[in-house]
Amino acid sequence: MGQTIAQKIFDDHRIGSPDRDVHVIRLDAVFCHEITTPPAIVDLEQRGKDRVFDPARIKVVIDHVSPAKDSKTALQGKILRAWARRQGIVDFFDIGANGVCHALFPEKGFVRPGYTVIMGDSHTCTHGAFGAFAAGVGTTDLEVGILKGVCAFRTPETIRINIAGSLPDGVFAKDVILSVIGRIGVNGATNKVIEFAGPVVAAMDMESRMTLCNMAIEAGGTCGICLPDRTTVDYLWPFIKNDFDTPEAALADYARYLPDADAVYAQTIDHDVSALTPMATFGYRPDNVKPVADLAGTPVDQVYIGSCTNGRISDLRIAAQVLSGKRVSDAVRAIVSPATPKVYNQALDEGLIKTFMDAGFCVTNPTCGACLGMSNGVLAEGETCAATTNRNFNGRMGKGGMVHLMSPATAAATAIAGSIANSELFKG
Amino acid sequence: MGQTIAQKIFDDHRIGSPDRDVHVIRLDAVFCHEITTPPAIVDLEQRGKDRVFDPARIKVVIDHVSPAKDSKTALQGKILRAWARRQGIVDFFDIGANGVCHALFPEKGFVRPGYTVIMGDSHTCTHGAFGAFAAGVGTTDLEVGILKGVCAFRTPETIRINIAGSLPDGVFAKDVILSVIGRIGVNGATNKVIEFAGPVVAAMDMESRMTLCNMAIEAGGTCGICLPDRTTVDYLWPFIKNDFDTPEAALADYARYLPDADAVYAQTIDHDVSALTPMATFGYRPDNVKPVADLAGTPVDQVYIGSCTNGRISDLRIAAQVLSGKRVSDAVRAIVSPATPKVYNQALDEGLIKTFMDAGFCVTNPTCGACLGMSNGVLAEGETCAATTNRNFNGRMGKGGMVHLMSPATAAATAIAGSIANSELFKG
Repeated sequence: MGQTIAQKIFDDHRIGSPDRDVHVIRLDAVFCHEITTPPAIVDLEQRGKDRVFDPARIKVVIDHVSPAKDSKTALQGKILRAWARRQGIVDFFDIGANGVCHALFPEKGFVRPGYTVIMGDSHTCTHGAFGAFAAGVGTTDLEVGILKGVCAFRTPETIRINIAGSLPDGVFAKDVILSVIGRIGVNGATNKVIEFAGPVVAAMDMESRMTLCNMAIEAGGTCGICLPDRTTVDYLWPFIKNDFDTPEAALADYARYLPDADAVYAQTIDHDVSALTPMATFGYRPDNVKPVADLAGTPVDQVYIGSCTNGRISDLRIAAQVLSGKRVSDAVRAIVSPATPKVYNQALDEGLIKTFMDAGFCVTNPTCGACLGMSNGVLAEGETCAATTNRNFNGRMGKGGMVHLMSPATAAATAIAGSIANSELFKG
Repeated sequence: MGQTIAQKIFDDHRIGSPDRDVHVIRLDAVFCHEITTPPAIVDLEQRGKDRVFDPARIKVVIDHVSPAKDSKTALQGKILRAWARRQGIVDFFDIGANGVCHALFPEKGFVRPGYTVIMGDSHTCTHGAFGAFAAGVGTTDLEVGILKGVCAFRTPETIRINIAGSLPDGVFAKDVILSVIGRIGVNGATNKVIEFAGPVVAAMDMESRMTLCNMAIEAGGTCGICLPDRTTVDYLWPFIKNDFDTPEAALADYARYLPDADAVYAQTIDHDVSALTPMATFGYRPDNVKPVADLAGTPVDQVYIGSCTNGRISDLRIAAQVLSGKRVSDAVRAIVSPATPKVYNQALDEGLIKTFMDAGFCVTNPTCGACLGMSNGVLAEGETCAATTNRNFNGRMGKGGMVHLMSPATAAATAIAGSIANSELFKG
């Protein structure tokens, strides 16, 4: 019987199966940030287990509140910093070198096809874009992962979503994933893996694939996975060139994870995007998705461009293209958070930071910031934000606030208009 | 009997004197930020006095926590925003257009020689650099100021400090004011005005004068004032060119505020800086000042360049000069907060942002940030910070943290060394 990519990765990493439906797998990496890891560190210390399975396989960043906004977040950083030092964890990204984990770690080449990764963060699924199995976990799993380098998962039932057709101009990966979530619902993939495939995904660059996989969790998915291909290899080449003679050799090696033609899926969905228009959410569920055209004119108080979903250089380029020579409406305040120092530097070199400044944006340092209502753009009661982020639950970006999820192009157009608007890139 | 500059300004603005020692003066401007003004607004509303004396004379900014870090600060911004709109206050600087009040308002030309200004902020004394009387006040005075455009002050006894000699290379206005405070003590000017004069001040640019006056409050001073001269007029010319035919005419007009040769001072201090070396503080009092050389090698956890004291373009230029081609020590995290969007843009155009990024600094958006432990760089218990800020009280930058006050040159050198160090600009 044929296998999905997740099944193949599990087979490759399985240490044991306590029962038919539970698999203990070996982890290639454990990612950590300052919000969820300090409680695990403190608990491990208290239990006399202040060890790590392999310091080289643990990657650590301060990203959620950066730099610290109060004594509590300062303490979180201090705990993480001290732990990384005493455990000999070299890949610790402190203030100045830090950025949004799910943008920074791929940049550093920490994810490879076939890898298994956990992190105490729901959007860990982002790393599936590289053909990896990457999942967000709770404190207990994180502790076991840190200590033993293993994690237990249920059999990864997989939903295959073939993104078919071709993307119209001005329609982006964010619009695709919003349309998918709108179609299958917030529970559409609960406890399942989503395999994103088809010609549209094959044509996407890695950043777009990360945007797709990032929001798998918003449909309940444990992980979103794209199939490793030449695009994957080209992105990773600087990090794997010592492991393979040629990109072709890498590609051939990674092909062992590709799903079989007769793989068994829990569900297969063909999702044609040829007629897709820019999408945005309304209300407090990520599946409450509407065409931007239907929401046009809806006023917003704030526009936020950034996050692990859409804070990468391609996102900033698109937003800057829309903003170029224009000014943010007086009715809104606009914030952009380049996701990593590399993204910030690229944006600096390409003149994008200048474009954002000239348009009247507040340009923050790299951080998760406003996305989860923890810093750098928290909403007040009754306020709304047009955001390139991933989650619009009630209060996500501040108690009593509402978030409209959308692409960077739409967010930029909304900043100019002062209300939800399609960008000029979309010829609808 | 001759008069000081403060006495002349009071005479020019006096509405009445309830007794010999109390003077009710007319205000030329009331400055507001999001921390201290919302309580005044809410109280005025509750007392049925939701009015302002003159919307054109009220200048408002969000600067202390920008963008909002939580629901509380988001609400402060919302209250301020709504108030500015309903009162017709045009000069409201929201996220994106905002920066540190005492850097932003001078940039906008809101201060003039002879002006009287109040704000609910202790470093309002900064604006005295323009030959104005500017003082920080509490909520009650702020409310009266907003409502009536007046404020009551005691007779402004003045200490004259003549900064004599000439500044050695690599020694800056920050070193001068630290040395002054070290000499006269934190109560050395309590409830008095400090008139900064002498050849060193006359040779200073406006940004250096602002650094001087900014810290008058750290010696207890109500205001620090520099004498308006050609440097003052040149800085302000874009804003006053419609009021005067020539800069000379402006100068002649402002001369009416210059102190008389026989002005009576509470104290006159001659402070020769020819042998001054870079200075820094140790401990929790701004007057606990030592030569940097004596503190050299003292480890720090964080370096912060910014604030109303030293976040202006000249400060960033000096820091970048020291940092150019170098890297921040792994032992510290380094943060720079350009004080205003204009400063940020200048730093962008001059390549300074790039220099900071290349050195490993975290570059934040313009904000007061870490200085007062409210955001963007709060210290954890037991941590220390080398900072270009103005106040080192216990807990100022985070509970249990200690701040070493110093110049941008020294802060940059300290970032590279990982411990307190003199910059190469100082040939000591």
